[in-house]
Amino acid sequence: MTTNDPPPRGRGRPRRAEADEQILDATLAMLRDGGYRELSLDEVARRAGTAKSSIYRRWPSKAALVAEIVRREAPLPEASDCDASVRAFESLMNGPLGGIVASLIGEAQDSAETRAIVIAIIEPYRQLVRRFADDEATDRLLGALLFRRLLSE
Amino acid sequence: MTTNDPPPRGRGRPRRAEADEQILDATLAMLRDGGYRELSLDEVARRAGTAKSSIYRRWPSKAALVAEIVRREAPLPEASDCDASVRAFESLMNGPLGGIVASLIGEAQDSAETRAIVIAIIEPYRQLVRRFADDEATDRLLGALLFRRLLSE
Repeated sequence: MTTNDPPPRGRGRPRRAEADEQILDATLAMLRDGGYRELSLDEVARRAGTAKSSIYRRWPSKAALVAEIVRREAPLPEASDCDASVRAFESLMNGPLGGIVASLIGEAQDSAETRAIVIAIIEPYRQLVRRFADDEATDRLLGALLFRRLLSE
Repeated sequence: MTTNDPPPRGRGRPRRAEADEQILDATLAMLRDGGYRELSLDEVARRAGTAKSSIYRRWPSKAALVAEIVRREAPLPEASDCDASVRAFESLMNGPLGGIVASLIGEAQDSAETRAIVIAIIEPYRQLVRRFADDEATDRLLGALLFRRLLSE
């Protein structure tokens, strides 16, 4: 996800890091408005004042872009015991990004690529809990949260 | 989901119950070929030799039609203990319909109507386990299965 391209010089175009921030901000705003399904990279490019090809140079897919936003907006917290580790996942799923992650999990059922990206988002939370619980207990603790998040009215 | 319409008489068109079976069979075949996302009611109608409006008269949505197929193909088993109850859900999610249910759970994240239908599919399994475990334990036992089913590579 890094690039060796030199930043563009002057001419009013934002430097690469700024352009990336603008793309991420525009994506987050669109996600908050309409969720993952409504996310359009054409519209992200328009709002960020960049070309769609610039987005794809940096992120290979919508899902990859959204995964970066999740990592940026909900960095993995410190957790000194099992409860705190489980609560970290609970905060993610019940917080402002929970709907987006749930939607991404949905999308992942029909796309191996999206599934790999969702696993990359979720796996660190699993590892956090696994420091205090075995595999089965970990999946039960996180699974109960997932069950209620995905299957509540 | 029942109807009081009299069955059509003669003229080579199948009777109502037969037509329903043909619709369900055609839907199942399409689901097995392409999954929930690829399911097209136009194509179901064509394969079942019926009008699309006949499908909608009987089932208000794609999700409702699929829910009926899940109930028909994977009827809730008898289960005399907690383990057997959990295994019933495991069989559903890891069996031939598991991918379809997972896909429907995905779709449900962006549609309250689909979510209600998924809950109608899953809730009987939850009730089965709840005869032997409290709410939290039930959600952990089923959640661990869901976690692994939805988030494995």
